[in-house]
Amino acid sequence: MNESLFILKGTIVYSKNQSELEIYEKSYLVCNNGVVEGIYKTLPEHLEKHLVIDYKDAILMPGITDLHIHAPQYAFRGFGMDMELLDWLEAYTFPEENKYHSLEYAKKAYESFVKNMKHSVTTRACVFATVHEQSTVLLMDLLEQSGLCTYVGKVNMDRNCPDYLKEETDNSVQSTLTWLNKVKEKEYKNTKPILTPRFIPSCSDDLMRQLGEIQKEYNLSVQSHLSENPEEVTWVKELCPWSENYGDAYYQFGLFGDKEKEPCKTVMAHCIYSDKNEVELMKKQGVFVAHCPESNSNLSSGIAPIRMYLEQGLQVGLGSDVAGGTTENMFRAMAHAIQVSKLRWRLQDSRWKPLGMEEAFYMATKGGGAFFGKVGSLEPGYEFDVLVIDDAELNREQLSIKQRLERIIYLADDRHIKAKYVKGRKLF
Amino acid sequence: MNESLFILKGTIVYSKNQSELEIYEKSYLVCNNGVVEGIYKTLPEHLEKHLVIDYKDAILMPGITDLHIHAPQYAFRGFGMDMELLDWLEAYTFPEENKYHSLEYAKKAYESFVKNMKHSVTTRACVFATVHEQSTVLLMDLLEQSGLCTYVGKVNMDRNCPDYLKEETDNSVQSTLTWLNKVKEKEYKNTKPILTPRFIPSCSDDLMRQLGEIQKEYNLSVQSHLSENPEEVTWVKELCPWSENYGDAYYQFGLFGDKEKEPCKTVMAHCIYSDKNEVELMKKQGVFVAHCPESNSNLSSGIAPIRMYLEQGLQVGLGSDVAGGTTENMFRAMAHAIQVSKLRWRLQDSRWKPLGMEEAFYMATKGGGAFFGKVGSLEPGYEFDVLVIDDAELNREQLSIKQRLERIIYLADDRHIKAKYVKGRKLF
Repeated sequence: MNESLFILKGTIVYSKNQSELEIYEKSYLVCNNGVVEGIYKTLPEHLEKHLVIDYKDAILMPGITDLHIHAPQYAFRGFGMDMELLDWLEAYTFPEENKYHSLEYAKKAYESFVKNMKHSVTTRACVFATVHEQSTVLLMDLLEQSGLCTYVGKVNMDRNCPDYLKEETDNSVQSTLTWLNKVKEKEYKNTKPILTPRFIPSCSDDLMRQLGEIQKEYNLSVQSHLSENPEEVTWVKELCPWSENYGDAYYQFGLFGDKEKEPCKTVMAHCIYSDKNEVELMKKQGVFVAHCPESNSNLSSGIAPIRMYLEQGLQVGLGSDVAGGTTENMFRAMAHAIQVSKLRWRLQDSRWKPLGMEEAFYMATKGGGAFFGKVGSLEPGYEFDVLVIDDAELNREQLSIKQRLERIIYLADDRHIKAKYVKGRKLF
Repeated sequence: MNESLFILKGTIVYSKNQSELEIYEKSYLVCNNGVVEGIYKTLPEHLEKHLVIDYKDAILMPGITDLHIHAPQYAFRGFGMDMELLDWLEAYTFPEENKYHSLEYAKKAYESFVKNMKHSVTTRACVFATVHEQSTVLLMDLLEQSGLCTYVGKVNMDRNCPDYLKEETDNSVQSTLTWLNKVKEKEYKNTKPILTPRFIPSCSDDLMRQLGEIQKEYNLSVQSHLSENPEEVTWVKELCPWSENYGDAYYQFGLFGDKEKEPCKTVMAHCIYSDKNEVELMKKQGVFVAHCPESNSNLSSGIAPIRMYLEQGLQVGLGSDVAGGTTENMFRAMAHAIQVSKLRWRLQDSRWKPLGMEEAFYMATKGGGAFFGKVGSLEPGYEFDVLVIDDAELNREQLSIKQRLERIIYLADDRHIKAKYVKGRKLF
């Protein structure tokens, strides 16, 4: 008997596409060697001898991908929400991130972060660390132990930040290489490095050029920020007068995606103020958008035109963006995505109709999951990332499956997770 | 010894005014006969013999007032969020509210509602029931048993709703009188009737005129909806061509407040599209605004100019507006109030700066509490409504009290309530 084969029973839900759900009531979900083998209403004879875990009335859904989260900011989530981006970075973010030069501080803070991430609905995440190479490795160790699948980036910054965090350009490059080589030795199974220039304002042209070379040499994925705040966009124009737009400033250094270069990918957080050319470039390059609606409200940034991005065929996922966002609970990110899209429709641009729960669920699962390969669906061949959600406390009686899912998106949290699987491994 | 005197110890926080907090670390909060007697850093000799409950590091704050919630809509909270107001009423609200003609259905649904309200952060609420007089009394019985303090209204509607809910004008009046007389006999301590014409579109001029008379005769408080949605506002103009604005349509029938007539008060939910004259009238009449930010996002209604209302001296509180809002957790209403005020500043009108946590906390406590009299503060003389919030799970170490409170607003829920007192009575 194949011991890496097991079966979960429950009501199965995943995104068929951006706007439709696939629902199988009281069915069998088969995991074979970490991958979805299939869904059956009645168990076929050849599978009858395998272990079946019956989750009864619970809902089985794909794990959630958080495409953008800052691990060192977790310690100050939920306060200091009274500023816009650039002031907020100076007042709260940089002083806190500075503490991570201490491995002792980092250990304590990252343990708390990883513990809560493990027990959240997130199964995959793209994570920013700090400029500190050693504490970044520490964070990766902890994430590897957790069983979550993550990309983690040591941050690069050599300008426009306080001296206590500013790297010399060559040191930033050297530290990145040291970090990459350490990570190589670790032979993590689920934890990968991702190149992480913080954003254009904090990286000189020289640094970006050298990071572009590292990207090529190591064939790395890339994460950064793009067009989040009007002042920031103006600033980038001043800093990179040679660039056509903010995205182009990354592109010119080879740090803005490349559709041909699978499996390495690029994800840019926010994309609120991307103009037509920037959107075209994102599409051409296969750049992922990490939509972070709560953060974009908290920092008074604005609302990204996500319906437009989806209709134009861009790759879009959701991010919690802690601590611009206050919580790692990605259900809230889904609810916020729907809510702000309605305000955008009402206040800014009625051409793009609001998002529905289907689109929010799609972005949080299959949309963002695509950054990790075949992830975020329960179709055969997808990696077996599964959340078992027990919504009994949410008065599910008499609701349709779709209504239950919608209520889960608005109201559920870690309390309602009965079990969590990543690549077929049960985390709890 | 005075047995109605007891003392809580903990860190005490309340709103000094709209924009400032009053904070007493590790202090004694004295309750005498259901009212706050005082706060002491060191316990005075004459109080030393009384019972002291030491909540250690927990935060003691005033109970929260939910100025606008629909009890019969609790059963469908968190789904069907894909429509604007008028369509949403037809598709989801009216069919559900129709079920409350059955006392059996009402009992089950209202028990679930009241149970969750009791365990929420809400201590006071203005509650809509349905048109059904008997199930409204049932709801009031349950709320009275819960220990919460509430105003509850039997809804009036005699036009523009499905036949199955539509009352004949005279029946609506008669049923209201029957309901009021039944309630009188009940001699509730904490549960009061409030006159509740649903909104202008569902109440004929004749009905409104008669309700105005009932208001005078019974000296009742009034709750309704005002200027929530652009289509609704246009509709009211058509329905009441004689009125100067939507608020004036209530005013002409004597159902739009009266500053002289304490203690009866009027609260209007939403007030997003109130023009200058309507705002003037609200101010002149002492009408309370129930700001319901989550609902206003979910139904794509818009964002009310709350900073402007506060600066102009209007009385403003917060409402969950379940099921336009998805949750009875009023901390979320506070967070949403801040978040949407930032989007309003960014997208609509930069003259009014965003709300901070101080203003949100004020509206949820003292602002809305004022509808109930001396409620929503912990100053001497205020009714003793107290929440004991244990935020140990929210990594409170090294945070200031203000930071802890801000994190509580963004992240806490019923899990974090260690104890709850209403008028000095411990609910749990």
